[in-house]
Amino acid sequence: MLGHHVTAATARVGMVGGGQLARMTHAAAIDLGIELHVLATTPTDPAVLAGASHRIGEPDDLAALTAFAGEVDVVTLDHELVDESHLEVLAAAGHPVRPHAAALLHAKDKLHARTQLDALGLPVPAFTAVEDVDQVVAFAAEHRWPVVMKARRGGYDGRGVAVVDGPDQAADVLSRGGDWMVEALVDIHIEVAVLLARRPGGQHVAYPLIETVQRDGICVELIQPARVDDSVATAAIELGTRVADAVDGVGIIAVELFVGRDGALTINELALRPHNSGHATIEASTTSQFHNHLRAVLDWPLGDTSMRTPVAALVNLLGPDGPDRIADRLPAALGIADAQIHLYGKVSRPGRKLGHITVLGDNVEVARERAWAATNLLVGRDQTG
Amino acid sequence: MLGHHVTAATARVGMVGGGQLARMTHAAAIDLGIELHVLATTPTDPAVLAGASHRIGEPDDLAALTAFAGEVDVVTLDHELVDESHLEVLAAAGHPVRPHAAALLHAKDKLHARTQLDALGLPVPAFTAVEDVDQVVAFAAEHRWPVVMKARRGGYDGRGVAVVDGPDQAADVLSRGGDWMVEALVDIHIEVAVLLARRPGGQHVAYPLIETVQRDGICVELIQPARVDDSVATAAIELGTRVADAVDGVGIIAVELFVGRDGALTINELALRPHNSGHATIEASTTSQFHNHLRAVLDWPLGDTSMRTPVAALVNLLGPDGPDRIADRLPAALGIADAQIHLYGKVSRPGRKLGHITVLGDNVEVARERAWAATNLLVGRDQTG
Repeated sequence: MLGHHVTAATARVGMVGGGQLARMTHAAAIDLGIELHVLATTPTDPAVLAGASHRIGEPDDLAALTAFAGEVDVVTLDHELVDESHLEVLAAAGHPVRPHAAALLHAKDKLHARTQLDALGLPVPAFTAVEDVDQVVAFAAEHRWPVVMKARRGGYDGRGVAVVDGPDQAADVLSRGGDWMVEALVDIHIEVAVLLARRPGGQHVAYPLIETVQRDGICVELIQPARVDDSVATAAIELGTRVADAVDGVGIIAVELFVGRDGALTINELALRPHNSGHATIEASTTSQFHNHLRAVLDWPLGDTSMRTPVAALVNLLGPDGPDRIADRLPAALGIADAQIHLYGKVSRPGRKLGHITVLGDNVEVARERAWAATNLLVGRDQTG
Repeated sequence: MLGHHVTAATARVGMVGGGQLARMTHAAAIDLGIELHVLATTPTDPAVLAGASHRIGEPDDLAALTAFAGEVDVVTLDHELVDESHLEVLAAAGHPVRPHAAALLHAKDKLHARTQLDALGLPVPAFTAVEDVDQVVAFAAEHRWPVVMKARRGGYDGRGVAVVDGPDQAADVLSRGGDWMVEALVDIHIEVAVLLARRPGGQHVAYPLIETVQRDGICVELIQPARVDDSVATAAIELGTRVADAVDGVGIIAVELFVGRDGALTINELALRPHNSGHATIEASTTSQFHNHLRAVLDWPLGDTSMRTPVAALVNLLGPDGPDRIADRLPAALGIADAQIHLYGKVSRPGRKLGHITVLGDNVEVARERAWAATNLLVGRDQTG
């Protein structure tokens, strides 16, 4: 399975999961002359299509994880769908696992993250675990409807999150099964992400703050730097850094924050891996998040995170409702000469993240417009944004 | 051999040769969701190590080339070591070959290129084919010693080129065998490269002019934009474009030029493939030469070539004389936080191009210094430049 042993000293980074994050990490690994080895579930996973060396196995199969860990110098993650007890087994067997299981738990278990960060006095929305409708009603009585119900584990891209306006809706959500928590709905002006790379010893670098634009719980657009006052950006990065230190994350850490109209910051979620919010760093920053993730998990010096151009706009390419004709439409979309189109090699499904388009520039509205123009050409849609 | 068929419409570009140019083209192909398939001579060729799909075969084996061409949508080249008659056979069989054999001949055969461009009135050094010492002596009598002797075919990185100062040296060179030509030695102020991407119909884009710094016939350093007057840069790009049109190149075309103290331009050599002089475009330009090579050979719209930052400095990492400890030294070199280190996965040999280091910035001397600092850390050397 391993075909990349150029010299004995070539570093081998193992990433559990072969999705687009692993795919883009592989491209960074090519630059650095190191090997990315992925634990993929199928031979058509995006990273495998891009040529990462791989072992086929399920991320929750301890035997597969153990064999995989034996093939690499350090184990890191493309997603959170790994049992933390399995990661502890690997670590106990002497395999460096970065981030470690206890850190990862903050990304896997939203209730755990809320509880831990709240205990440290960090700003999180009011929250509580709920098992029945009465508890939701009681929480809403204190914080008012609507409230936000979240699956403790497993939700992403809007799945596992519901804004509910009364007991009937709450009952519907609970009937889906699993463990749920409820949160107060935060008054959101904009959402931002703090993106950091952090080494095992705690040394870290932060990227310029990123503005994330969500629609139906899915991130559709990113703007870097975020359009907030400098004081808000500084406070956000400070808060994100405190969160990263609190969870002792290693690698890329993304801390999603709500910004209120008054500039107040509230922690939303965190990810302990390269993150969608950081994709524009490929072109916009001196060192991309994928390069810095590799450097961080290898405990190597981190790269410069500063931006090379005044602004970057990024639009996520979401699977359209109709048939997938994106590959056919790619040449037309490349007619937007300054659009950087990234396709992940995934089969299209409505709403699925299939790629992204980045445009750098001096003017955020111009960059946004061009990124949307390329996106719309790819999906055969007229409207912008 | 092909593992990247995501959809029927996924474009498959075949590149003959699996060296570092193919490796970096593969990274660009990942972005665009297209497949790079290489004809590699060994499974440890740089592009194969990076995960490009591949067929093992020799570039001068027509059967291998024919089988390879049948696996891809278009055939292009990582090097010039392909028999042009073989490319003609592929083209006659209906396989798009870009650049076509007649264009490639200008890169393969220096006498042919000189003769053709001279006939068009384009500025080339005085030259003639030579078969014996008397012809060299006669040429030198007209143009003065020293003269430059060049192998018509096969030379690169200073091999096949000799500055000779008299009949004895000329006899030495001729005794190596093969076909030789002789040229007048041009008074060189600096050397530059015009880098263009050109589609089959002739549509093209040019990159900002690149300054190339040679030592012992090997390019050791690049600076973009070249430090010449705007009028010289404009004239150089105009001349490079005329050369590209004259040879009807498709894909990336690099035209190396001598710039005299008076600003006079003389054509040195040309390459019809991604070129070392263009490696800084990965970070420095909106669209890298590798992306634009793919776009050009697929006859897709070309990307914006403008630079994102005022200057880029690039140093080629050449194999040191001692043992190869570059992989061990990589973490230390990454301490230069804004250096973009690219390693090609090649076994070290003294003087071999093993990678390159790019630094972007506002000040050329600062950027150069930092690129050299990272390079020297990689090879364990003290002196800069």
